[in-house]
Amino acid sequence: MTTAAVGLVGFGTVGTGVAMILLERGDSIRRKTGLDIRLKAVCDIDTTRDRGIALPAGVLSDDLSRILNDPEITVAIELIGGTTVAKDVVLKLLAAGKDVVTANKALLAEHGRELFQAARQRGRAMAFEASVGGGIPILGSLTNGYLANNIDSIVGIVNGTCNYILTKMTTGGQSYALALRDAQKLGYAEADPTLDVGGGDSAHKLAILAMLGFGAEFDTSEVHVEGIEGIDVRDIQFAAQMGYTIKLLAIGKRASEDIDLRVHAALLPSKHPLAQVSGPYNAIQVTGDACGDTMLYGRGAGQLPTASAVVADVIDMLLGRARITFERLNLYTGRTQRRRVKPIDDIETKYYVRFSAADRPGVLAEIARVLGERKISIASVHQPEVQKPVVPIVMLTHRAREGSMRQALETIDRLDSIRGPSRFIRLEGEEE
Amino acid sequence: MTTAAVGLVGFGTVGTGVAMILLERGDSIRRKTGLDIRLKAVCDIDTTRDRGIALPAGVLSDDLSRILNDPEITVAIELIGGTTVAKDVVLKLLAAGKDVVTANKALLAEHGRELFQAARQRGRAMAFEASVGGGIPILGSLTNGYLANNIDSIVGIVNGTCNYILTKMTTGGQSYALALRDAQKLGYAEADPTLDVGGGDSAHKLAILAMLGFGAEFDTSEVHVEGIEGIDVRDIQFAAQMGYTIKLLAIGKRASEDIDLRVHAALLPSKHPLAQVSGPYNAIQVTGDACGDTMLYGRGAGQLPTASAVVADVIDMLLGRARITFERLNLYTGRTQRRRVKPIDDIETKYYVRFSAADRPGVLAEIARVLGERKISIASVHQPEVQKPVVPIVMLTHRAREGSMRQALETIDRLDSIRGPSRFIRLEGEEE
Repeated sequence: MTTAAVGLVGFGTVGTGVAMILLERGDSIRRKTGLDIRLKAVCDIDTTRDRGIALPAGVLSDDLSRILNDPEITVAIELIGGTTVAKDVVLKLLAAGKDVVTANKALLAEHGRELFQAARQRGRAMAFEASVGGGIPILGSLTNGYLANNIDSIVGIVNGTCNYILTKMTTGGQSYALALRDAQKLGYAEADPTLDVGGGDSAHKLAILAMLGFGAEFDTSEVHVEGIEGIDVRDIQFAAQMGYTIKLLAIGKRASEDIDLRVHAALLPSKHPLAQVSGPYNAIQVTGDACGDTMLYGRGAGQLPTASAVVADVIDMLLGRARITFERLNLYTGRTQRRRVKPIDDIETKYYVRFSAADRPGVLAEIARVLGERKISIASVHQPEVQKPVVPIVMLTHRAREGSMRQALETIDRLDSIRGPSRFIRLEGEEE
Repeated sequence: MTTAAVGLVGFGTVGTGVAMILLERGDSIRRKTGLDIRLKAVCDIDTTRDRGIALPAGVLSDDLSRILNDPEITVAIELIGGTTVAKDVVLKLLAAGKDVVTANKALLAEHGRELFQAARQRGRAMAFEASVGGGIPILGSLTNGYLANNIDSIVGIVNGTCNYILTKMTTGGQSYALALRDAQKLGYAEADPTLDVGGGDSAHKLAILAMLGFGAEFDTSEVHVEGIEGIDVRDIQFAAQMGYTIKLLAIGKRASEDIDLRVHAALLPSKHPLAQVSGPYNAIQVTGDACGDTMLYGRGAGQLPTASAVVADVIDMLLGRARITFERLNLYTGRTQRRRVKPIDDIETKYYVRFSAADRPGVLAEIARVLGERKISIASVHQPEVQKPVVPIVMLTHRAREGSMRQALETIDRLDSIRGPSRFIRLEGEEE
């Protein structure tokens, strides 16, 4: 039996979950790992709020130095969130000789290079399974079980808020605004939901997945990010009629020279495993050149799922495995391949397009002519019956370069017979 | 960069896949892990057959001592299969000071205790990710990402042969015999399919999953095992009409005193994630008290998926992590909890039952009376229209003790109005 003391910074929802697991599941962890883990110090600016859990006397304080200066504490957990105070705290913890476990995807995506270098310089390690996919063991798999593969693609539903909203829009026919309000009521969306619905949170997670999966370095600011704010419930319904489901996806694909990284809503064939992932669930599809298609599915957020991943990292760190993983990851060591993110205009994919057209003959011919000039061929056309002067024309295209698609739509939107801006959504998950 | 030499015993389908990965993906592995892995010796009784791969001169031989006596080779891979020669070879490899990677589930399920003890005595380690779920990183997740959980249940589709056959019966309406022949033609089933279709292979995998997931020891011979040979295509069709899909499941559940382990076909709600797993795919649902429901999905067999898991273990071993995992697993160390497997008569579940009855009034009342006497309550009755003297009566029950169900069916099958043996299939995957 090995005894170990850990410190926790940030006693919010996930932090409380971590404390619950360490205090209430100690027996099970001892039995399975031989580790006797003591939560020795918890640090938070709010030391009075009732979190529904009784910490042993003297454990909770607002004094970070209780963790920094305690030589018994070798592993510290950062669960503050955000990128300013959290960054400062992690650097202090590393400087004080602690290995650091964090769930902070924003911090890693934005300052990973600097933090990892600081850890290396101090001979410390970092682990961050909880930063992506909550209780889904995805990062551990990318740094172990998938290692014999060249990863071809990583495509995931990694934001539960967006998936909940899109599911409500799909099954309940609700508008985006209504579905968002519903998600806020249930605690699935924050009062300010921008980071979730704008795709930023998914982009942070994609950066971490791609870093580990492709073993590459890239500039995260080059990643193309769209949210779900512009998704119209009509597009969800038209897509459903054609056998597709709309999901917000984090997409990473190995390309020959560069790397294709983007976050946006996409049409998936409704039978696709990712299309079945509903409500607050997350799933990540990893395709390797040896293992083929695989998918990991589970609760991508929430107190205990996320806390279980944090504690798994603490165990991994105390066992000594996480240190090996961190040292071998080659993250930001100069040994990794620096890759350019493929510009969005250069990607090639299929598209769903909706035009708002005057209800008169010849419109379709005009649209088809412009698309043809840009070498975009039409796979199918659907003109839902509506009794209005402006009718939607919905189209699926074959694969086309995005730059050509944008140019074509610009031209089409200037046609006399077009009555509003055209909308396109990319397709994903079909055989090439 | 660390250079390492490995030896491979068994140059069949998966062995050839391992050689392909090590020879052809060396660059990628070096870049990601800093390991330069050399396949130094391959041993097989057949040294002449063309496997479609060119090993470097002198690597292939039929002489095991080339591996045993080479001090440079620290990790050896056993891919012979079977439990007699393979056991002997693994013991020799351990005695010669090699760490051993194996994909051999039968060997581990039947002789795991002895092999792990031998490894411990010699200070060696074993790794076996490829023994369950092919390219699905399930064992690595159970020994890492899930460690903070008390695992409540592990339910999996872990035999691709059975899943392929059941999928063909479900979507094509084929009989079991026809679907099996089809699977054999495509190479999804062996000439002698007994170990697969009889449930034995799933039971081996369940033993490994339960050992790691529940951290318990048990007698594998106590596991209740049924195969799919008795599944009638009519039951698949009746189940489909009621919204269920029949799958062969490996089921492990934590019970208060004992442990519930069984392999049998079961009705799953057709919307259940496991019900969507079709053809040769595998999936394992792991439910933890912290992480909630999760599922890992992918190719459960095949040359490269399985080989990718073997090579991942080799990497894990060479990095030093697999040794830590093996030493901390507490497998067969006397420190693990010895658990009794719950006798099948003591389990409680819902049932699908099909009676073959004479087409006359009062039959249903008689059946209901017998069930009622055993405190089995009926949830729904379906009497498909057929023009025959013998009609099927299909029923779903509420939860009942299996012993009671068996006794009731024995009584019912002796009724005058019953014209053939009643069949029951357990339900799985519904909220309690």
